[in-house]
Amino acid sequence: MQVYLDNSATTKLDKRVLKKMYPYFSENYGNASSIHFMGEDANKALDEAKKEIGKILNCGQKNIIFTSGASEANNLIIKGIARANKEKRNTILVSEIEHSSVLAPVEQLGKEGFKIKYIPVDENGQIKMSEFEKMLDEKVLLVSVMTVNNEIGTIQDIKTISKLTHKKGALFHTDAVQAVPYLKLDINNSEIDFLSLSAHKFYGPKGVGLAYVNRKYKIFPIIDGGEQEYGIRSGTHNIPGIVGMAEALKLAYKEKTTHLKELRDYMWDRMKAEIPNINLNGDSRSRIPNNLNVRFESIEGEAIVIELSTKGICVGTGSACSSKKLRASHVLKAIGLKDEHLNSNVRFTLGKFNTKKEIDHTVDSLKKVVKRLRSFTSIKK
Amino acid sequence: MQVYLDNSATTKLDKRVLKKMYPYFSENYGNASSIHFMGEDANKALDEAKKEIGKILNCGQKNIIFTSGASEANNLIIKGIARANKEKRNTILVSEIEHSSVLAPVEQLGKEGFKIKYIPVDENGQIKMSEFEKMLDEKVLLVSVMTVNNEIGTIQDIKTISKLTHKKGALFHTDAVQAVPYLKLDINNSEIDFLSLSAHKFYGPKGVGLAYVNRKYKIFPIIDGGEQEYGIRSGTHNIPGIVGMAEALKLAYKEKTTHLKELRDYMWDRMKAEIPNINLNGDSRSRIPNNLNVRFESIEGEAIVIELSTKGICVGTGSACSSKKLRASHVLKAIGLKDEHLNSNVRFTLGKFNTKKEIDHTVDSLKKVVKRLRSFTSIKK
Repeated sequence: MQVYLDNSATTKLDKRVLKKMYPYFSENYGNASSIHFMGEDANKALDEAKKEIGKILNCGQKNIIFTSGASEANNLIIKGIARANKEKRNTILVSEIEHSSVLAPVEQLGKEGFKIKYIPVDENGQIKMSEFEKMLDEKVLLVSVMTVNNEIGTIQDIKTISKLTHKKGALFHTDAVQAVPYLKLDINNSEIDFLSLSAHKFYGPKGVGLAYVNRKYKIFPIIDGGEQEYGIRSGTHNIPGIVGMAEALKLAYKEKTTHLKELRDYMWDRMKAEIPNINLNGDSRSRIPNNLNVRFESIEGEAIVIELSTKGICVGTGSACSSKKLRASHVLKAIGLKDEHLNSNVRFTLGKFNTKKEIDHTVDSLKKVVKRLRSFTSIKK
Repeated sequence: MQVYLDNSATTKLDKRVLKKMYPYFSENYGNASSIHFMGEDANKALDEAKKEIGKILNCGQKNIIFTSGASEANNLIIKGIARANKEKRNTILVSEIEHSSVLAPVEQLGKEGFKIKYIPVDENGQIKMSEFEKMLDEKVLLVSVMTVNNEIGTIQDIKTISKLTHKKGALFHTDAVQAVPYLKLDINNSEIDFLSLSAHKFYGPKGVGLAYVNRKYKIFPIIDGGEQEYGIRSGTHNIPGIVGMAEALKLAYKEKTTHLKELRDYMWDRMKAEIPNINLNGDSRSRIPNNLNVRFESIEGEAIVIELSTKGICVGTGSACSSKKLRASHVLKAIGLKDEHLNSNVRFTLGKFNTKKEIDHTVDSLKKVVKRLRSFTSIKK
């Protein structure tokens, strides 16, 4: 039996999404910038995708900028807003537990003269609101806090954060990559200025994402050229990818995730009961329903991942979506894990295709793996 | 009958390429950065694509950086090399007839303090070698000259240009987007330091391209994050796209283009014989075999494109691949077209799926369209 429990790293493309993409590969394959009917057809597909997405996210469709994924969207928004508005304000606030595609751009901006400040989080991964308020002053240009953390699944109170940000005249960005399909996103109502999404995290295609960009504000592109996407992102439109992203987003909110929460809770209940010396990292309540990030006392998380892999089971270590470097998770560090615990963690992220049978098989295998690995250490069970 | 003659704007995805991509959508859908077997499978596909492409382009596979397309590759190379090496030299030379995704980044660099100089071209679109040599001095950091022009199909003598560039200690980039499948690219032999390609120009998928980057030189990324692609381009790998690009490149050089040249020449022979007052723009010899860029005396090129489109025939105006702005072509201007001739041009770019029947149908329709449009002007034929 093969079991895929790494759905926060990437997901299986839904066959219904692929079906929707299909005609745009080899039939309606025109360039959306061409003025003949094939170009018009492509452009119509682009427009419809924006209309659909705008409806779902409750935002103006002309603020949707398609990118190659969320890494590009995060870079575009953060670098683009900072560099275009540096004369006005020059401090950027980000949470300590952002994804690397937010942290690395702000580090780069730090080298360019911006002041970067990191908002601390509590043991659940929630940003410390009072500290945040103290950090917010009239020098802050941009605040970037992710909607859902990719490692521990913590959900932030985005609306409160954006309101506080706006009160001080700063702009608000949220990396919402891990929020779909679990949380309803409402851009207008939550007062979000900028938002990033990636299709392959919700059963859509790889290689496509979007930046929601409030076009009231000046932004510099990172890819200049043919001036597609209102000049904010040049390059021939990836129409099959864009059509697929819109379809995947539509399906995401059509299908319920109740089943997933039950399955996840069932998994955790079995694990707690049957495997000694384990701890759940992060918030048990304000957490997306598919995530378990678990510390296994006295074992390397990576060893568990590799052993499970030989048994056909895919799970992640603390931090996925980034190149395979052996680095302790900055997220687990930020929520207060001790140094000696930083390498003992495994992330299980369920998806809509998982079954109870798969979860049982995983827990059964995990029990054996943990026992075997612990047989080499001081803890003998 | 529908006829697609806009293959320099984009091409139909070859069904064999799609077949090769297919398993990576919903079966082997792992994230290449994951360490379990699904990640390893994805990583293996990535490695094999690089190996294959490295063999075809005659370059080290570790210098191949996958991007979302050539616009991104051009931006990455030009901005990345300039910004990382500005302390050394600060002049950038580009030909007058580069694609907008080369021209726009150098304009941006001009604002950042770099000195940008434009290499003039002759009436065929060939860069003026003696002028180029005069412009080359020890302040030049980077020279960027496209292998094949996207509007008029002119082929440059890349090897000579790169040798001259290196003699002065500068680096050489070529946007080779329009070269495949018509010209053999040999990166090592041609002494190319940087090169850009886009899969959708040679019957591969949209949304994927590559930057060949000689990693001896320091380069700054434009997308920072998870440090994929040796830290030069972050973001989850688009494995289906990457696999498709490798397959499309392989097919590109397996299939002969002789048929295409015959068809193109046949088309031009008929046009010359049957439509009065038309001129071929650009070089008639050093030109890729699928391109005809034609000036129709006293008619707007755009009117022809639109009329042909209503008859099911897709052709381009002077400049494609860029947003639908009505701007006179900088390429046709550079090769010396008079102002009053700048808006009278149509680009016909054939592809491997075109047939003689389609070409006949196109010329027949074109004759009628030209006659009709000229009936409104002083030229009565």
